[in-house]
Amino acid sequence: MKYENDLKNILSEYKAGNIAEDEVLARLQNANYTDLGFAKLDHNRSIRQGFPEVVYCEGKTIEQVVEIMKMLASKHKNVLGTRASEEMYEAVKKELPEVKYHKIARLLTIENEALVKDSERKIAIITAGTSDMPISEEAAITAEIMGNEVIRIYDVGVAGIHRLLDKLELIRSANVVIVIAGMEGALASVVGGLVDKPVIAVPTSVGYGANFQGLSALLGMLNSCAAGVAVVNIDNGFGAARMASIINHMR
Amino acid sequence: MKYENDLKNILSEYKAGNIAEDEVLARLQNANYTDLGFAKLDHNRSIRQGFPEVVYCEGKTIEQVVEIMKMLASKHKNVLGTRASEEMYEAVKKELPEVKYHKIARLLTIENEALVKDSERKIAIITAGTSDMPISEEAAITAEIMGNEVIRIYDVGVAGIHRLLDKLELIRSANVVIVIAGMEGALASVVGGLVDKPVIAVPTSVGYGANFQGLSALLGMLNSCAAGVAVVNIDNGFGAARMASIINHMR
Amino acid sequence: MKYENDLKNILSEYKAGNIAEDEVLARLQNANYTDLGFAKLDHNRSIRQGFPEVVYCEGKTIEQVVEIMKMLASKHKNVLGTRASEEMYEAVKKELPEVKYHKIARLLTIENEALVKDSERKIAIITAGTSDMPISEEAAITAEIMGNEVIRIYDVGVAGIHRLLDKLELIRSANVVIVIAGMEGALASVVGGLVDKPVIAVPTSVGYGANFQGLSALLGMLNSCAAGVAVVNIDNGFGAARMASIINHMR
Amino acid sequence: MKYENDLKNILSEYKAGNIAEDEVLARLQNANYTDLGFAKLDHNRSIRQGFPEVVYCEGKTIEQVVEIMKMLASKHKNVLGTRASEEMYEAVKKELPEVKYHKIARLLTIENEALVKDSERKIAIITAGTSDMPISEEAAITAEIMGNEVIRIYDVGVAGIHRLLDKLELIRSANVVIVIAGMEGALASVVGGLVDKPVIAVPTSVGYGANFQGLSALLGMLNSCAAGVAVVNIDNGFGAARMASIINHMR
Amino acid sequence: MKYENDLKNILSEYKAGNIAEDEVLARLQNANYTDLGFAKLDHNRSIRQGFPEVVYCEGKTIEQVVEIMKMLASKHKNVLGTRASEEMYEAVKKELPEVKYHKIARLLTIENEALVKDSERKIAIITAGTSDMPISEEAAITAEIMGNEVIRIYDVGVAGIHRLLDKLELIRSANVVIVIAGMEGALASVVGGLVDKPVIAVPTSVGYGANFQGLSALLGMLNSCAAGVAVVNIDNGFGAARMASIINHMR
Amino acid sequence: MKYENDLKNILSEYKAGNIAEDEVLARLQNANYTDLGFAKLDHNRSIRQGFPEVVYCEGKTIEQVVEIMKMLASKHKNVLGTRASEEMYEAVKKELPEVKYHKIARLLTIENEALVKDSERKIAIITAGTSDMPISEEAAITAEIMGNEVIRIYDVGVAGIHRLLDKLELIRSANVVIVIAGMEGALASVVGGLVDKPVIAVPTSVGYGANFQGLSALLGMLNSCAAGVAVVNIDNGFGAARMASIINHMR
Amino acid sequence: MKYENDLKNILSEYKAGNIAEDEVLARLQNANYTDLGFAKLDHNRSIRQGFPEVVYCEGKTIEQVVEIMKMLASKHKNVLGTRASEEMYEAVKKELPEVKYHKIARLLTIENEALVKDSERKIAIITAGTSDMPISEEAAITAEIMGNEVIRIYDVGVAGIHRLLDKLELIRSANVVIVIAGMEGALASVVGGLVDKPVIAVPTSVGYGANFQGLSALLGMLNSCAAGVAVVNIDNGFGAARMASIINHMR
Amino acid sequence: MKYENDLKNILSEYKAGNIAEDEVLARLQNANYTDLGFAKLDHNRSIRQGFPEVVYCEGKTIEQVVEIMKMLASKHKNVLGTRASEEMYEAVKKELPEVKYHKIARLLTIENEALVKDSERKIAIITAGTSDMPISEEAAITAEIMGNEVIRIYDVGVAGIHRLLDKLELIRSANVVIVIAGMEGALASVVGGLVDKPVIAVPTSVGYGANFQGLSALLGMLNSCAAGVAVVNIDNGFGAARMASIINHMR
Repeated sequence: MKYENDLKNILSEYKAGNIAEDEVLARLQNANYTDLGFAKLDHNRSIRQGFPEVVYCEGKTIEQVVEIMKMLASKHKNVLGTRASEEMYEAVKKELPEVKYHKIARLLTIENEALVKDSERKIAIITAGTSDMPISEEAAITAEIMGNEVIRIYDVGVAGIHRLLDKLELIRSANVVIVIAGMEGALASVVGGLVDKPVIAVPTSVGYGANFQGLSALLGMLNSCAAGVAVVNIDNGFGAARMASIINHMR
Repeated sequence: MKYENDLKNILSEYKAGNIAEDEVLARLQNANYTDLGFAKLDHNRSIRQGFPEVVYCEGKTIEQVVEIMKMLASKHKNVLGTRASEEMYEAVKKELPEVKYHKIARLLTIENEALVKDSERKIAIITAGTSDMPISEEAAITAEIMGNEVIRIYDVGVAGIHRLLDKLELIRSANVVIVIAGMEGALASVVGGLVDKPVIAVPTSVGYGANFQGLSALLGMLNSCAAGVAVVNIDNGFGAARMASIINHMR
Repeated sequence: MKYENDLKNILSEYKAGNIAEDEVLARLQNANYTDLGFAKLDHNRSIRQGFPEVVYCEGKTIEQVVEIMKMLASKHKNVLGTRASEEMYEAVKKELPEVKYHKIARLLTIENEALVKDSERKIAIITAGTSDMPISEEAAITAEIMGNEVIRIYDVGVAGIHRLLDKLELIRSANVVIVIAGMEGALASVVGGLVDKPVIAVPTSVGYGANFQGLSALLGMLNSCAAGVAVVNIDNGFGAARMASIINHMR
Repeated sequence: MKYENDLKNILSEYKAGNIAEDEVLARLQNANYTDLGFAKLDHNRSIRQGFPEVVYCEGKTIEQVVEIMKMLASKHKNVLGTRASEEMYEAVKKELPEVKYHKIARLLTIENEALVKDSERKIAIITAGTSDMPISEEAAITAEIMGNEVIRIYDVGVAGIHRLLDKLELIRSANVVIVIAGMEGALASVVGGLVDKPVIAVPTSVGYGANFQGLSALLGMLNSCAAGVAVVNIDNGFGAARMASIINHMR
Repeated sequence: MKYENDLKNILSEYKAGNIAEDEVLARLQNANYTDLGFAKLDHNRSIRQGFPEVVYCEGKTIEQVVEIMKMLASKHKNVLGTRASEEMYEAVKKELPEVKYHKIARLLTIENEALVKDSERKIAIITAGTSDMPISEEAAITAEIMGNEVIRIYDVGVAGIHRLLDKLELIRSANVVIVIAGMEGALASVVGGLVDKPVIAVPTSVGYGANFQGLSALLGMLNSCAAGVAVVNIDNGFGAARMASIINHMR
Repeated sequence: MKYENDLKNILSEYKAGNIAEDEVLARLQNANYTDLGFAKLDHNRSIRQGFPEVVYCEGKTIEQVVEIMKMLASKHKNVLGTRASEEMYEAVKKELPEVKYHKIARLLTIENEALVKDSERKIAIITAGTSDMPISEEAAITAEIMGNEVIRIYDVGVAGIHRLLDKLELIRSANVVIVIAGMEGALASVVGGLVDKPVIAVPTSVGYGANFQGLSALLGMLNSCAAGVAVVNIDNGFGAARMASIINHMR
Repeated sequence: MKYENDLKNILSEYKAGNIAEDEVLARLQNANYTDLGFAKLDHNRSIRQGFPEVVYCEGKTIEQVVEIMKMLASKHKNVLGTRASEEMYEAVKKELPEVKYHKIARLLTIENEALVKDSERKIAIITAGTSDMPISEEAAITAEIMGNEVIRIYDVGVAGIHRLLDKLELIRSANVVIVIAGMEGALASVVGGLVDKPVIAVPTSVGYGANFQGLSALLGMLNSCAAGVAVVNIDNGFGAARMASIINHMR
Repeated sequence: MKYENDLKNILSEYKAGNIAEDEVLARLQNANYTDLGFAKLDHNRSIRQGFPEVVYCEGKTIEQVVEIMKMLASKHKNVLGTRASEEMYEAVKKELPEVKYHKIARLLTIENEALVKDSERKIAIITAGTSDMPISEEAAITAEIMGNEVIRIYDVGVAGIHRLLDKLELIRSANVVIVIAGMEGALASVVGGLVDKPVIAVPTSVGYGANFQGLSALLGMLNSCAAGVAVVNIDNGFGAARMASIINHMR
C-alpha cells in the first residue's frame, strides 16, 4: 500500500513542521500522477485497483499514445493499451521493443513480470458466435494480464442449445463468467439461469439491421430474467474483464 | 368461394346487358361490405382469410362497438372482438346475449357453430412468465375460435431452462409454435433452435424500466439467431394467433 | 432422423454397460457438431431444420470462413454462406472450386445435389422497388437452395397500385409470400389484405433520411393492419426465406 | 387587407409629421394584437392567413381559455378552440352561450357568419379506421369552419383495399385530400399513388405497442414512396385542415 | 387523359365481344407500364400526376439506371433521375448524349421540350444556410423541369432574422414556398408565420452532433407552431418540389 | 466565506495539537451539512453558490419534505422547494406558517429577508405560448427569490414574429435572457440572433404528438444556429433561473 | 447439494433397472419444480443460486400471487415477493400471517429463519438522492434477507462531493458496493474511481424531462469511465442486490 | 454601435425627403450584410454580438469557403472558420496568406489585431480525457480569438477524482468554466457542484458503443444534478466558447 504510506509520511512530516503547506500539496500531487499536459497518468490506481491505468488509444494521436506508453512503462512492469491500431503499435515498438500487439483484440501489452494466477479461480469467457471474437479476445487477454486464468468457450449461441449444455460442467468450474453476445443477447439469460456465479454480460454490435449497433443485445441483457447478471457497455470486452478480475481477486 | 362466384355472376349479367355499369358498381360494393358510415365491415374477408373481420375495440365508442358487433353477428356465425373493456361487454350483451367475455384476454366472442379442429395439428403457445398471460390468452382463445387445438405451456422462461426442456416433447408435437415473452424475449431464440416448425414470436411489454414498453423484447426477437422465427407487434397475441392459424390450415 | 437414432444407440449401449458415462458424454458431443475452437458447427441442424447450419460470413476473418466452409462441405452436400464478400469467395474457391458467388445477393453456394422442389407449392417474392434487389435475391436464392420454387415479382410498390393488382393472380398462386420493402413498407399491409396465405415481411434500409436504416419500414410492417403478416429483421432476406421454406415444407 | 392599409396610413401620417415616433410604435402594436399579459392575441392573422388565431386549449387553465375566447369573440365573427375539455366548454358557455362543443373532436366553435364554401372545391378526409375519428372530426370541423366543403370517407384502410378502390371516384372529385391513419400509415402512400391532388397526411397514435404513440405512422408517411404527400404532426387533425384550407383557397 | 380513354376503348371493345377477357387483361397491363423484370416503369403516371415516373438512382446498379433511363427517354420527352452519381451520368451519356448532370444536386435531366411556366405563379425556395444547397438545388431543378418558375433565396437562417425580413416581399410574391433547413429547422415556423401561402418544409441532415442525421430539424418542423406548414422526408428536396409543383398547378 | 474560515480554524487547531485527527474529521462533517439519514442537507452551498440547497420535492414523501423544510428553515432565512404538490404545502404550513405556495409553478417559498436586487441587471423570461406558464413561473419566482428583477414577456412565439419584435427593446434591456418554448423551440434561435446577452433556453413538453415529451424542443434548442445559447433540461425552469442568477450576479 | 444427489440417485436406479425411462423423466420433473399451470415454481433454484425463486408480483393477479406465495412458503423457510401492492399484501396476510410488507420498497417478505450474515463482508448501498429510496430500500431489504449486512449511505450525489468524500472510509469498508442514482447517474463513476471493490450500478427513473424514464442514468452508467462498474436494469434494486449477494458469498 | 447610427441616419434622411422609400430599403440591406447569392454575410453581427459572423465550413464547397473568407477578411480584422479541412486551408492560404490552420481543432483563423484580454477574467476549459482534445482546442482557440484568457485543464475525468480536486483552486480562479466530456459526461456535475461560476457543458462523441455518438454524455449533462450548468450541442466546442465569451465580457 505504497500510496497510503506516502500520504501518512507526508502528513506526519507536515505536523512535525518539517514541510510547509504548499510543499504538502505539491508532494501529494507528484506522488499521485504524472502530468503530461494533455494527459494525467494516475499511478496510484495500480494500488487502488490492482493494475496501472490502462490507455484507451482510440481518439488519441499516435504521438500521444507513444508518450503515454513510455511514461507508464517507466513506472510499472505491466502496461495495457486498448483499441490500438496497427500504426500505433509500429510507433510504440520503436520506443518499447517489448510491446506485443494482439491484432484481433486490438490490444497493446507489455508484460515484464506476469502476475500470479490462482488456478482454482478461473474466468470463463463464453461467446454466442465467432463474429464476437474481437470482443472476447479483448476480454480474455485483459483478464490474463491482470492475473487470471481464462477458459474460452466460443460459438455456443442459444439457437443450438445442446452446444452450450455440453459445456455446462466446464462453465460451472469457473469462478466468474463473462458472456459475450450480439444479436438478441439471449445467451446471458440462459447462462445466468444455469450457474450460481456472477455473470458479466457484454452486448456486441454484431448482427443484422435491427441490432442498431448493439442496442438490441444491450437491452436484452439489461432485461435479463436471470438473477446474477450485470451488464457493461456495448463491445466493451475490456470493461467486463476488469470487473471480472476485481471480483475474482476478492478473498 | 362465395365472393368470386358473385363477381362472375355480376360480370356475366353485365356483359349480357342485363345490368348497367352503375348497377355493376353498386352491387359489387354491397356484396363486399356493409357501410355503417363510421365503419365499413368487410364480409368477404371471411372467405378470403377464413374468418370474418375482427373488431379492434380500443379507441371506438361503446355505441360503435355494439353496432359493429350486431351487424357482424347478423351475417356470420362466429364473431370476435379484441381489446374490449368490461363496459363494452355489458353493452353488447344487452343486444347479443350469447356474447362471452374473456376478462384476462379482453376478448368478446360469439361462437354459434364452432369450427372443426384437426387434432393432428395443434398450435403450442409458450410463455416466459405468468405476467404474459393477458397476451397468451388473447392468442389462445383467438386460435381456438379460428378452429385450432391449442397446447398452453406457461412460465417456462429461459432463466430456468430445465422447465422448458422438460416440455420439449410436448412442444415438438405441435404444428406451429407461438412464443410470448417480455423482458429480453430470449425464449423465442431458444425455442426456435429446438423445433423444426415455424415460430411466431410475440414481444410483450412486461418488465422493468429498460424494457421500454416492449422494445427490448421486440428487438431481441427480431434479432433472433435462430432460423424460422418471425415476429408480430408488441402485445399482439391476436395477430400471432391469426398468423399461426393461417399456417396451420395450409394443406 | 439420424440424430435421434444415434442417441438411442448410445443410450442403449450405455445401459448395457458397453460404454462408460464419460464415453457417453464424449460421443454425444461428437455426433452433434464439429468443434473448430473458434466455431462449433452444428451437424444435426440439417435433420432438425432441414438444412445444414448456414454460415453468416460478416465479422469473420477470411481464414475462418474458408475453414468453416471446408468442414461443412466435407459433411453435407449443399452449403450456404451469407453476407460474403468477393474476397471471401476468391479464397474459398481455391479450396472448393465448386462454390458459386451470387454478387448482388452476397451469397456463397455449393449445391452438389439440388433438393426436390414441389411445383405445386411456390414461394412468391415481391419487392417494392428495384433497390430492394440485394435483399430479394438473398431471399430467392436461399429459398431455391432449400428446395422451393420461387416466383419473383419485383418493383410493384404501392405508389402505383395497378402494377401490384395486375400480378394478383400470380401472387395468389403461391403457397407462401415474402414481401420486401424499404421506405414505409406499406406493401406488406396491402399484400396481406389481398391473399389468404402467410406473408413474411422484410423491411429494408432503402430510402431517404427518416428511413433511419430501415426503422420506418420495420415499424410499418410490425404495425400492419392486415392479418397474417409476420416480420423478420431489417435486410434479412435469408431469414425470411428460411421461415418461408419451413412453412412451405409443412404437410 | 385591413392590416396593410393601417400600416400605410400610420406611415404616411408619421411622414406628414402628424404623429411622433413613439406614437407610431404604440399604434402599430395595438393594431396587431391584444395583450392579455399571459397571452397575446394576434388579430391580423385573420387577414394574413384567412382565419383568426386559433386557441390551443390544452395546457391552459380554464380561466385563461375563457378570457381568450371572450376577447377573440369580441373582435371576430368566428372563433375556434382545439383540444378543449368538456369543463372548458361549460365555463365558456356561461360567457358565450353561442359556443358549440364537438365532443369527439374536442373542439369549441363559434360560427356567427359561416364562410362561403366553393362547392367545386372539396376537401376529402379519408381514415384508415374508425378509431381515427377523433382526429378526422377535428380536421373535418376545422376545414368546414374555415370555409370548405368536406367529404368524409372513413374506415378504408389498406388491408381491405377494395373498400378504398370503391371510393376512388369520390376521392378524385376532391381538390385536396387529407389522409388520416395510425398503425403503419400505409393509406397515405396508396392514396398518394392514386390521385393527382396534394395529399396531407396525418399520422395517428392508434395501434398496438410498436406504434410508439404514432411514431410508426409518422415515419411511414414521411417515407411515403408516393409523390405529392406531405405530413403534419401526430394526431394533428387541425393542422392538416389548416394546410388543406390554405391550398384549397388558392386561385 | 390518355389512360382513361384507353381504358374506355378496351372496355367497350370487350363488351362488343371483339376481344376476349384474357386479351383485356394483357392490353391493360401493356398500356400501363413497361416491365423490365427488375423494374416496372409506370407510363400513365405522367398523365395522373403530370410528369413521368422519376428514377431514384441510389441503390440501383449502373446498368439498371442506364436501362431505365433509356426506356423512359423512348416514351417521354422529359426525364428526371435523382440521387445519381457521376459514374451513372457517364454511363447514361454514352447512350443518351442529351442527358445533363447537375453535380451539386446529384440530378440527371433530359429536357427535350420544356414545360410552359406560369410567371404569375412562382415557387420560392428558401434555405437557412449555404450547406443546405445540395438539397435546395435538388428541389429547384426538379421544380423547374416540372414547369415552375423558381425564386432562390439562400442563407437566410433565423439567427440573423433581418436577412429574412429583407426578403419578405420577394417571398410573399411566390405562390408556394419551400423552406429548407438543418440544425433546429426554425426557419419553417418563422416563414410559416409570415406568409399566407402553403409552406413545404424540408429538414436537412446539416449540423453538429445532436442533429442526429436530420432528426432535430424533422421534429422541429413537424412541431411547427405556425399554421400552413407540412413536412417531407429529411433531405428530400425532390419530394418537396413535387408536392409544391402539384399545388402550383392547381386551378 | 464562512465555510473556508471554518476550515482554516479547524486545520490550525489540529496543527496546534488542540484537536485529534478523528475530531477534525467529525467537525468538518458537521460544519458542512446536517445528516437526516435519508437526506444530507448541504449548508455551505449557500456560501458556495449564493443560495441554500433547494428541495426537489417530487419523489419524496410528505414527511420527508416537511422534515427537510424545517431543518433548512432553522438554518437559513430563505428556503425554496420545487415540484411540490398542494398536499405537501398543507403539511409544511402546519409546521412553518410563513411558507407560501405558488400553485401554477408548484413552488414552496419562505422568504424572511428578501435579497437585494440590482435594478440595472434584469433577467428577461420569454415564453412561446401561454401553455408554457408553469415552467416560466417556476423560473421567474426562482429568479426573484435568488435576488433578481424579472421581466416577464409571455406568448411571443415565432409564428407571429411581430409580437416578438415589438418587445425587442424590452428584451435588450435585460442582462440575461431565459427563453422557454415547447413544440419546435424555435424562439431560442430567433432571440439568440437578436440579443448580445447570454440566452438560457428551456425546452418544454408542450405540444402535439411528435413533441415526444419535449424532445423536439430540446433538440431544436441544442441545434440552435444562433450563438450564445445554452440549454437546460426539459421543463426545468428552476435550473434556468439558477444559471441565469449566477451569471447575473457576476461582477 | 440436494438436487444433484437426487439426480445421481435417479440415474443409478435407472441403470439398475429399478425404474423405467418414463418414470425417470417424471421424477426428474417433480424434483425440479411445482407446476401450478399458470406458473412453474423452481425449487432447486434455492440450491443453485442460494435463495428460492423470487416472485415478481407486478402483472400477476392477486389470486396468482397468493397461490404462488403459499406454495413457496410450504417448501422454503424464507420467501420474497417484489413489486407488490398493498392489496396483494392484505390478501397474502390472510393466508400467511407471518408475511411482512415493506411499503416504500414494495416488498413482501417471510423470514422464518434468517440467514447467517458475515459481518466482515458488508454491502454498501449508496444513493444520489432521497427520491431514490424506493429503489435503495428494495435493494437493501433484498440483500438482508439473502444473508448480507448492509450499510445505507443515502443522498450523497456528486453535486456536493464533500458529502460523499466524508463517507469514503465507510464505503471502503464494504466488500461490494451498490450505487443507485437517477438524473445523470454520475455517482457510479465517481464511486467506481474511489474504491477497489466491484460496483453494481442501478439507474433510476428519477429526474426532470430528459431523464426519459431512466435512460439518461442508464446510458451514463454504462459509459462509466471508471473500471469495475457493471449495470442492472432501470429501477431494479432487487437485481442489484441479488448480484451483490452472489459476489458477497463467494469464497 | 455603428449599425444603429446608420439606421438613424437613413431614417432621418428619409423623413427629410432626401431619399425615397425604395432607396431606404436598398441602403438598409447593404449596410447589413453582403449577399454572395449562395451566402449572406452578416456584418453587423460583429456589433451585435462582439465578433463577425463565423464561417461553418463543413458542407460548403472549397470555392464557397474561399469566397466567404475573402469577403469577411475585407471587412473585418479578425476572422474565424470552424470545421475546416486541410484542403480548405490550402485553398484559402493562396488568397489570404495570413490565415492560420489549427489542425487538431480544425479551425481557420485570421487575427490581424488581437482583442484585448482581461487577465482578471479567465475561462477555464476542463476535459475528462485526452481524446476530447479536438473539441477542447476548438473551444480554447475560439475563446482566445474572441478576447479571453484561457486556462487549459485536460484529462481530469471523475474516475480519478483527486486529479480534479488537485486543480480546484486553479478552476475556481476562472470567471467562467467550460467542461468537455464524452462517455457519461459526469465531470460537468462534479465541477458544477464545486464552483460558484457558470458552467457551460459540452458533451462529446468519445466513447464505447452505448455512447451513441454523444447521446449518453448529452443526456448526462442535461440531467446534471448540479446547479449552474447549461449545455450546448454535442462536440460543439465553438458554441461553448462563444457562450462563455459573451458571459465573460459582461460588466
